[in-house]
Amino acid sequence: MGSMHRVCAVAALVSLAAARVTTDPDATVHISSLDVPFSSYASQQARDQWAARAREPKGPGLEKGVAAARDFYGKFNDALAARMRVLYDVEIESKVIGGVRTEIITPKQGPAAGNEHRVLINLHGGAFAWGEGSGGEVESIPIASVGRIEVITVAYREGPEYAFPAASEDVASVYRSLLQDHQPHQIGIYGCSAGGILTAESVAWFDHVGLPKPGAIGMFCGAAGRMSGDSLQIAPALQGQKMQEHFELQFPYFAQAHVKESDPLVYPINSPQLLARFPPSLLIAGSRDFSLSSLFNTQRALVEPGVEAELHVWDGLPHAFFVDPDLPESKEVYRVVSRFFMRTLSR
Amino acid sequence: MGSMHRVCAVAALVSLAAARVTTDPDATVHISSLDVPFSSYASQQARDQWAARAREPKGPGLEKGVAAARDFYGKFNDALAARMRVLYDVEIESKVIGGVRTEIITPKQGPAAGNEHRVLINLHGGAFAWGEGSGGEVESIPIASVGRIEVITVAYREGPEYAFPAASEDVASVYRSLLQDHQPHQIGIYGCSAGGILTAESVAWFDHVGLPKPGAIGMFCGAAGRMSGDSLQIAPALQGQKMQEHFELQFPYFAQAHVKESDPLVYPINSPQLLARFPPSLLIAGSRDFSLSSLFNTQRALVEPGVEAELHVWDGLPHAFFVDPDLPESKEVYRVVSRFFMRTLSR
Repeated sequence: MGSMHRVCAVAALVSLAAARVTTDPDATVHISSLDVPFSSYASQQARDQWAARAREPKGPGLEKGVAAARDFYGKFNDALAARMRVLYDVEIESKVIGGVRTEIITPKQGPAAGNEHRVLINLHGGAFAWGEGSGGEVESIPIASVGRIEVITVAYREGPEYAFPAASEDVASVYRSLLQDHQPHQIGIYGCSAGGILTAESVAWFDHVGLPKPGAIGMFCGAAGRMSGDSLQIAPALQGQKMQEHFELQFPYFAQAHVKESDPLVYPINSPQLLARFPPSLLIAGSRDFSLSSLFNTQRALVEPGVEAELHVWDGLPHAFFVDPDLPESKEVYRVVSRFFMRTLSR
Repeated sequence: MGSMHRVCAVAALVSLAAARVTTDPDATVHISSLDVPFSSYASQQARDQWAARAREPKGPGLEKGVAAARDFYGKFNDALAARMRVLYDVEIESKVIGGVRTEIITPKQGPAAGNEHRVLINLHGGAFAWGEGSGGEVESIPIASVGRIEVITVAYREGPEYAFPAASEDVASVYRSLLQDHQPHQIGIYGCSAGGILTAESVAWFDHVGLPKPGAIGMFCGAAGRMSGDSLQIAPALQGQKMQEHFELQFPYFAQAHVKESDPLVYPINSPQLLARFPPSLLIAGSRDFSLSSLFNTQRALVEPGVEAELHVWDGLPHAFFVDPDLPESKEVYRVVSRFFMRTLSR
């Protein structure tokens, strides 16, 4: 039995030529062919970008060596960061905090009322292998400017030179230093992709080493558990690709004998008790992001023990779409992020 | 250009045999074949149900006439309602309120502290053509019992006998009567599928006729705008079906010369000014629900003017999955719904 008859009836009313579909006893679905028009909910800019991407050569992956990837994404992020600086008026200062290199991004117009003593820590994306510098700037400049709040982006240790939990330790060092002149509830942490995963891991690490939890966190395009679910199948397929379950454990940073998938410091979702101590959490992705299902799953696990977990999804948009500041959808993301921290952090 | 290189690099690291994919200049994607394992995030019960459904004959749609559909879904809902009564201890009383037939569902253990003066209005699903009676009970019994709150499910007028805005008028009649001994902020409204659409339309209708807005609403598996987006393509395909853009306008209730797609009373999302006056809103669906993208789009439109819009998605689950009370995911939904109204309604 089941609740499916309801949908079947509706679908029968409107069924057109359907693809040939078979379903295995384990519920695996095989679809003979699938045509997916671009989402009518997304902007023309997002549509143009999707079509253009399909015509472009792909960027190099880690299989060509980390140097090639860092070179390619360094230039890619440099261009985006330059565009961010044109659009958003911020000051950027390099500073070593707690022994860790950081960049402090502050809005030129000064902090918003209420944000004078608040600070955000940004943890950049890049497969735990690249993204420091301009990659962190790309994630921090629009939030600092739109939210009118100080953002500190952290050049945490990455693979293959370093391995888990080096990055968590670095975030803790910066956080511990900030606690000298901030209350924990005045500090927010957020990151995108690898940075979303690291944000969750950092909260687990703080708990592990006896640091207080921060006021709020944002896990964007990556969250507190392994990558799996519907989006990991469907989103890559829309780009002619296929991704493995919890592929992130193949990143050099995690692909180490001492790293255990069952460790709550790797995947905080392994410990419901730990998750119950998480601060208010913001979860953001596009509907064509391979990480989306992992965000759904993290939200489920957070709300069960009563943690506030706010989810926002932009239909038709891919992984980390909001690194492009010219998409209308990106501007919505910046506003959602700014409002979330304004609401959840103490003054 | 674009933000895609980032995902491509990750995907290249883990690419397996990929399907053949072509992308048109308008960004339509053609996938040669797609295998989708069942979501590892979903329960074994949900997996078993998905596989069983694929083996079952489909239920009749409206193309076989409304009598056949009402007969089939009447029996289907009767069985689910009987199961609900076994699991949840409630009283059910039939009552005409404001000239409209309703059933009042109350928890046998009495209301929770704070819920003594709160009441929820349920608007059942069923393509604006069926679902009154047992369909409404299925949506109301678990919320009344888990949330320990009074729920009134409304037998609003449906198609083909009646047409838009008859259902909106009926909801307004019930609501106006309840305002005789409730504050508007003590009243919540929620519904599933057609009932989710009608919930949004009711708020628009109240605004139109000068009634105050209710305290909070829940739009489940249907929301404030037309059905479109990624989920309308992908979710039906997983069941070997294809659905048309805004197919809901083909329901007899809407398929009338006087019904205009641009009317904010049909699709409240047409009016940003109206949406800005919406109460706190809860949006719920499964990742395999054709309506999911319409929920994403409604949330975007609500949060832009600052309306609180809380979104929850269960990975791997289909349209209206929580009519089955034996799925673990359904129990999570009942808790999320109960907590939302407990938090947002006045005492």
